[in-house]
Amino acid sequence: MNGAESLVRTLAAGGVEVCFANPGTSEMQFVDALDRTRLLRCVLGLFEGVVTGAADGYARMAGKPAVTLLHLAPGLANGAANLHNARKARTAMVNLVGEHATYHKAYDAPLTADIEGTAAPFSDFVRTARTAAGLGADGAEALAAAMSAPGRIATLIAPSDTGWDEGGEVAEPVAPQGPSPYDEAALDAAAEALAGPEPCVIIAGGSVLEAPELTGLLMGIAERTGARLWSPSSNRRIERGRGRANFPKVPFPVDVAREKLAGARHAILIEARQPVAFFAYPGKPSLLLPDDCARIAVADFHQDGPSAVRALADRLGVEGPHVVDAPRPEDPRAGPIDYAALGAAVAAALPEDAIVVDEGVTAGRGIYAATVGSPPMSWIAITGGSIGNGPPLAAGAAVACPDRPVVALQADGSAMYTIQALWTQARENLNVTTVVFANGTYEILKQELTRVGANPGRSALDMLEINRPQLDFVDIARGMGVPGRKVDCAAELAQAIRDAVAEPGPSVIEATLA
Amino acid sequence: MNGAESLVRTLAAGGVEVCFANPGTSEMQFVDALDRTRLLRCVLGLFEGVVTGAADGYARMAGKPAVTLLHLAPGLANGAANLHNARKARTAMVNLVGEHATYHKAYDAPLTADIEGTAAPFSDFVRTARTAAGLGADGAEALAAAMSAPGRIATLIAPSDTGWDEGGEVAEPVAPQGPSPYDEAALDAAAEALAGPEPCVIIAGGSVLEAPELTGLLMGIAERTGARLWSPSSNRRIERGRGRANFPKVPFPVDVAREKLAGARHAILIEARQPVAFFAYPGKPSLLLPDDCARIAVADFHQDGPSAVRALADRLGVEGPHVVDAPRPEDPRAGPIDYAALGAAVAAALPEDAIVVDEGVTAGRGIYAATVGSPPMSWIAITGGSIGNGPPLAAGAAVACPDRPVVALQADGSAMYTIQALWTQARENLNVTTVVFANGTYEILKQELTRVGANPGRSALDMLEINRPQLDFVDIARGMGVPGRKVDCAAELAQAIRDAVAEPGPSVIEATLA
Repeated sequence: MNGAESLVRTLAAGGVEVCFANPGTSEMQFVDALDRTRLLRCVLGLFEGVVTGAADGYARMAGKPAVTLLHLAPGLANGAANLHNARKARTAMVNLVGEHATYHKAYDAPLTADIEGTAAPFSDFVRTARTAAGLGADGAEALAAAMSAPGRIATLIAPSDTGWDEGGEVAEPVAPQGPSPYDEAALDAAAEALAGPEPCVIIAGGSVLEAPELTGLLMGIAERTGARLWSPSSNRRIERGRGRANFPKVPFPVDVAREKLAGARHAILIEARQPVAFFAYPGKPSLLLPDDCARIAVADFHQDGPSAVRALADRLGVEGPHVVDAPRPEDPRAGPIDYAALGAAVAAALPEDAIVVDEGVTAGRGIYAATVGSPPMSWIAITGGSIGNGPPLAAGAAVACPDRPVVALQADGSAMYTIQALWTQARENLNVTTVVFANGTYEILKQELTRVGANPGRSALDMLEINRPQLDFVDIARGMGVPGRKVDCAAELAQAIRDAVAEPGPSVIEATLA
Repeated sequence: MNGAESLVRTLAAGGVEVCFANPGTSEMQFVDALDRTRLLRCVLGLFEGVVTGAADGYARMAGKPAVTLLHLAPGLANGAANLHNARKARTAMVNLVGEHATYHKAYDAPLTADIEGTAAPFSDFVRTARTAAGLGADGAEALAAAMSAPGRIATLIAPSDTGWDEGGEVAEPVAPQGPSPYDEAALDAAAEALAGPEPCVIIAGGSVLEAPELTGLLMGIAERTGARLWSPSSNRRIERGRGRANFPKVPFPVDVAREKLAGARHAILIEARQPVAFFAYPGKPSLLLPDDCARIAVADFHQDGPSAVRALADRLGVEGPHVVDAPRPEDPRAGPIDYAALGAAVAAALPEDAIVVDEGVTAGRGIYAATVGSPPMSWIAITGGSIGNGPPLAAGAAVACPDRPVVALQADGSAMYTIQALWTQARENLNVTTVVFANGTYEILKQELTRVGANPGRSALDMLEINRPQLDFVDIARGMGVPGRKVDCAAELAQAIRDAVAEPGPSVIEATLA
């Protein structure tokens, strides 16, 4: 058995089922091994940012580690922005990156570059395989690193001769490191603060948000104690909607967030850290909690948030999940699609058990609140701020959950970073409905330009407009095998979403915003 | 004056004229400074790989340094693949990368990552600015590093407060390091070998290929001595065509290259290193020259190749440029577009003084030889093997040379990595004619799969097919504001290229290959 086959068999034995790939010559022996073993489903992306983003979406929804296959340093770099998002989501992912044969690297062929250096800023584990005999064991360790709490990015670099040389050995799975215990003293302090008279906020993230039982307990705690609940601004995945708890997100604008959190004297952090400003702005603070608010760090990202939540509920005598009784949203009236109508249309049209992918950025900011009463859904969002996350996330989520409709809320500017994901959606016949919010501008940057104190002139604003020429997402989608339509009426938008969800396979709805 | 303005003024004083940009919040103060000073032309890309590739194309054709404006580590990473190509081209480029404010970085906001680490594998110079007062001087040093021989990638990371703080100082230009002298002893050895009876090859690259006077002298030397001329497989830029010397490229397939170079006893290297296999393959050598061939390294990349060529000509008594007397290619007959017909159509249709951008990969391999007798042209090609170089290179070359037609020879699979460049071509109304070679496959990888010894099955081949679904480049182009047409006849292709070149602005021709 060659090294490549031993690695594929090792990964399969460790629970890997899907490989998202954009291979090149140095990965041909892995393509061959994937072909011969038929152990993993292979999903091709036309660009590596699609591959890594789709792997992220898959892992978030499947609860299983994703594997990518990438081509040398430039291929890895092309995927790095979405590795950044995946890392901030604390997704479990193994990147298998091809490299020149061990003896060939010294010759500085054109594609030679420092792959370990490229991987380091975006990985928690980096290793270069040395031999075919060791490649299986390297893979088992990379997989264990990826699956260790809270979910990590592991990059395994495989010189091509470690793939084609004989002597490969399938390695036994290595046990990943589970979550560490939560902080008992902090839990005591949290229980005391919650039982006391001073205003408390509970900020919960990570795995807690994925379990309605846990968010329901936290909502019970909030009802019992008057504490306010928050989730971080973006999360790997949150289970929400009708019949579940409601966790508003800490708002993006610094002033709004500070205002919302004003008065809190105790911040109880569970699989979350204290919220900070997304960016710095002249004369504005970086921290969002009041200065005199005590930070009570019950569980960091790698610690056991679920046990902490249960223990806290126990201390406070809260039982069973508490849920919001929000009305099912109604269809918006016919009319232009302003931000409010956009939220209403999406909220009304969301089907049962949807996976919502949120890269709505500015135009989409109101949709989260508008969908509290929509049917139960999984909500997955861009986590690291590196735009171009949505289209691939949607593809990967649909690969993970073929029986669930995926509705992707997509800013137009952001869509263009990884628009090639539409092709993968078509190729795999994934039921993804992408709603592109067409405002023809990097709207967020226009707001940010004034926030940094600029008084923008024509040429500055021109740098933030993307409507010259106008992007036509229906044409672009058609070119990649995805049908689409344009709508400029809110009522029509709701119906268009329903129609698209009902139809198998992907589609794009370009929503022209008022 | 704030730091951002001091930096813009410093770069302009150093000769920078264009900034290719995809900015975010942390770069808003630079957008503002660019707006207020109006010293640089700003060209927007929808994706960072477009930005860096366009900067590369600009610098190659303008002979002036290019500047990019990128957003934090993920934005830089998105641009890194084309920085890799630019670095292998030895292009002079300054990347200005925004960073969180100095005091904000500690808070680990979502977009926080190691920017210096991200830059290092793709840069020759990396610096993080510390203060507004020092930002101008940092910029002058980065620019000098970029412009130092043979052309380098300099990355300057600017925390946002170094941009918005007052106290900026415009810095005087710093002199770049010019080329080092060539190796005199090696020149003696080269002259002796050329005058002797044993077979010689001359492999010249870099700046030598950009000067018809120098390639003409080398051709005279070859005619006088019987030496054979070669250029590296891909080059920053080569001036070629009717009335100029002909430098065939070292072929990509290892066996073919070895065969072509067989028998050589002396290899004279001028701004080039010995040719090596692009990839390793089981049982095949990495080196392309015969083992018993002496390597005579007259000038490395950073050394003075032009003086070496002149000195060598002088030693051998060669005067004036020698040129090939190749006939002007004729139009192909009507019929399917096979590889030969493709080369004939392009060769016949190329206009006077064209800039040819070569990312034709497999399908385009024959075009170089077919165009020896086409009108004089600049030929710029993907240099680092990281596909997705062509569409942005074409955009940047057209920005540099608004009065010259750009003809981009573009493989379909490669086009999809940076297809967003079409939008920039439309926005800037650039006269770029992109001929997409539509074979619906990663053809090169199918060949490579067998070269690594695999006997590919259906699922392996499926990973290399990109025609399920079919990509429609005319639709995709229209979606980005670029008109297009499809052709499947060789004679029609030649006419389509002529028509597109004659029409201002960009266009796409999808050539369906037989």
